[in-house]
Order: sequence, then C-alpha cells, then structure tokens
Amino acid sequence: MREVFHQSLDDVQGRLVEIAELVTIAITKATTAFATSDVALAEEVIEDDRLIDARAVVLDELAIEILARQQPVARDLRMVVSALRMSASLERMGDMAEHIAQLARYRFPERAIPKGLKSTFTSMGELDVQIATKLADLLRTQDLTIADEIRNLDDDIDELHARVFEKVLSDTWKGEAGATVDATLASRYHERFADHAVSVAKKAVYLATGDWTAEGETSENAV
Amino acid sequence: MREVFHQSLDDVQGRLVEIAELVTIAITKATTAFATSDVALAEEVIEDDRLIDARAVVLDELAIEILARQQPVARDLRMVVSALRMSASLERMGDMAEHIAQLARYRFPERAIPKGLKSTFTSMGELDVQIATKLADLLRTQDLTIADEIRNLDDDIDELHARVFEKVLSDTWKGEAGATVDATLASRYHERFADHAVSVAKKAVYLATGDWTAEGETSENAV
Repeated sequence: MREVFHQSLDDVQGRLVEIAELVTIAITKATTAFATSDVALAEEVIEDDRLIDARAVVLDELAIEILARQQPVARDLRMVVSALRMSASLERMGDMAEHIAQLARYRFPERAIPKGLKSTFTSMGELDVQIATKLADLLRTQDLTIADEIRNLDDDIDELHARVFEKVLSDTWKGEAGATVDATLASRYHERFADHAVSVAKKAVYLATGDWTAEGETSENAV
Repeated sequence: MREVFHQSLDDVQGRLVEIAELVTIAITKATTAFATSDVALAEEVIEDDRLIDARAVVLDELAIEILARQQPVARDLRMVVSALRMSASLERMGDMAEHIAQLARYRFPERAIPKGLKSTFTSMGELDVQIATKLADLLRTQDLTIADEIRNLDDDIDELHARVFEKVLSDTWKGEAGATVDATLASRYHERFADHAVSVAKKAVYLATGDWTAEGETSENAV
C-alpha cells in the first residue's frame, strides 16, 4: 500500500512538474508578446491557458482519487493536500501569464510596454521566466536550495514593482492614462506571478521535509 | 461514524459562515474607508485581516483532521476538499478588502476615490458588500437561489469595472497618474472580490447538491 501510495505521489509530482513547465512556456511567450507587441504570440498564450487549467483539473482529480482510495494520514495526507494547493497556485500563475498576453493584445498595434518603463518590464519578465524555470526544477529535483533562489528573485520583482509606481507617480512621468493603466496592471501581474511561485516553492519544501511549521503565504501589498 | 462526520461537516460549515461574516465586515469597512478617506477605519481592516487569515488556517486544519480521522470517500470527500477551496477563496476576499483599505491609507489625507468615479466606486462597494452578505447567507441557509443572485451581482460589478476603464481611457479623463493608478487597482480589487465570491457560491452549490459537473472558476479578464 505504501508503495502504491508513493507511485501515486510520483505521478502527482510528475504532473506538477509538467504544469510548471507549461507555465514557464506561457510566461516566456507572454513577456515576449508584451515586449514586442506580438499579438499572434499573445493569442497562443491565451489559447494555451486552457491546457494549463485542464491539466490542473486532472491533477486535482488524481489527488482526490488518492485521498479516496489510499486514505493517507499524517504527513502523507498533508502531501496530497499540498499538491492540491500547488496545483491551484500554478493555475493562477498561468492566469497571470494570460493576463500579460491580454494586455499586449488589447494595446495592439501599439506597444503595451509604456515608454520609460521598457527596461523595467524587460527585467520583470526575465525574472518571472527565471522564477518559473527554477520552480519546475525545484519540483523535478526537490533540490531545496532552489526555493531560496526563488525567494530572492521574488524580492527583486518586488523592488521592480515598487519602481514602476515610483516612476508612474513621479513628475517625469509623461505617460497618458492608457500607459498608466498598462503599467499598473502589468506590474501587478508580474508581481503576483512571482508571489504564487514562492507559495508553491514553500509547499515543495514541506513536501520534501515534512516541516509544516513554516507554512503560510507570502506577504502581499496592495500596490 | 456517519453521524460524527456530519457533526464535523456542520462545524466546517459554521466556520465557513463565520469567515464569510468577517469578510463582510471587512469589505463594508474597507469600502467606507475608501470612500471617506477614513484612515483609522482602513487600519482596522488591515489589522483584522490577520484574524480572517487565522480563521482560515484553523478551518483548513479541521478539514485535514476530518480527512485523516474519518477518511471520507466519494461525495463526503469532495465536500471536505471543497471546504478547503472555499476557505482559500474567502481568505483572498479578505485580502482584497485589505488592499482597498491600503489604497485609502496610501492616499490619505487625499481622497482615494478619483474625481469623476465617485458614484461608480460607491456602487461597486455597495455591490461587493451585498455579495459578501449574500454569500454568508448562502453558506448559512444553503438556499441555492442566493447563488444566482450572487452571480447577477457579479455581472453588475463586471459592468462597472469595464466602465471604470472606459472613463479612465476617455478624453474627458482629467485624473493625474496617481488617480489613474488608484482607479485601476481599486476596480481590479472590487472585481476580484466578486469573482472569488462566485467561486465560493458555486462550491456551496456542489456541497448542497453534490453536482460537481458544473465545477470551474468564473472567467476572468485581465482588464
């Protein structure tokens, strides 16, 4: 029974990795579409988010089946419950990538990246791609040092997020309302993407260590 | 054992109602603080969100204990898993109320509600308060007609959300960047609050009917 359980858990882990890889592709395409106003690429991201949602549903059903058939307790039970939560966070990361792609599509043929913030959003996009890549690695390898790397990258994102608002609220900001809206939403989506990744990384650490004491979401500010 | 299970489930339901009531208080205070620039009230909402988070953690632990001790299967199992998900959505509703309060605090002593959008945000706030009130009623009474009312109120919120962007992107918009940022974020938080409520309401319907076929989150747009 233990062996069956661990086979099932390996299946869950494999599916979490798979979804994290799809999310990595989504955020890579989304930030490229946002930076280059590639509406076709944006449409791809928006279309492919359905796949991510569908994979998350399949994973959730698998986790529920494991609960029903194998009735895990204690640490095993928490592992399955954590998998359900990681699935939800990964699905939201896919949504954030989709939202960034939607911004590129709305603004087309104009550039979605507001003037004066190109380098900031390029860096945010690169950081989110790195975070997603590392998250898939963490889930695959269970090398827990990667969780700290993800936390550090999230700190960098938070700094850039604050910089976007400093810029937009400064006297030097010449952007029109549309540019201000885009900057506000795009920055928010990039920052939330990273927050969800940190939340998944934390749960991956519990899965590996069984230490639930540190459980909790990342602190999040309104702006 | 069934009786013990149903006692536990009643406890879960009672705690969901309690959290929904705390969320109703939070959004009521938050929208008032936002409308009147009442920074003390905003601080209250921000402080009280810790209580909502703590109650959600207690509820999650209870649900996990039910899974461990009573090993529910089939519909009973889905009910407990749904409770975990409803808890997460209610916790996020509390976060959205906190974010609206944070906007009021950041802007203080100025008004957080941008000129020209006062009536729109007043209506959004009233709708979110109605939605939260009805959600607590739905969880308490399991009167499923309330779920449809919540869905309709969410449609009204979506219309107002779209109106905010029409206004901000129109030639008549005279707001400065700060006002545009506030309008963008506040509208987003109000809309997400309602989306989470619809998601909880759907799960409440499954809890009552056991019909999981319609499961799925509400569609959400980037702007």
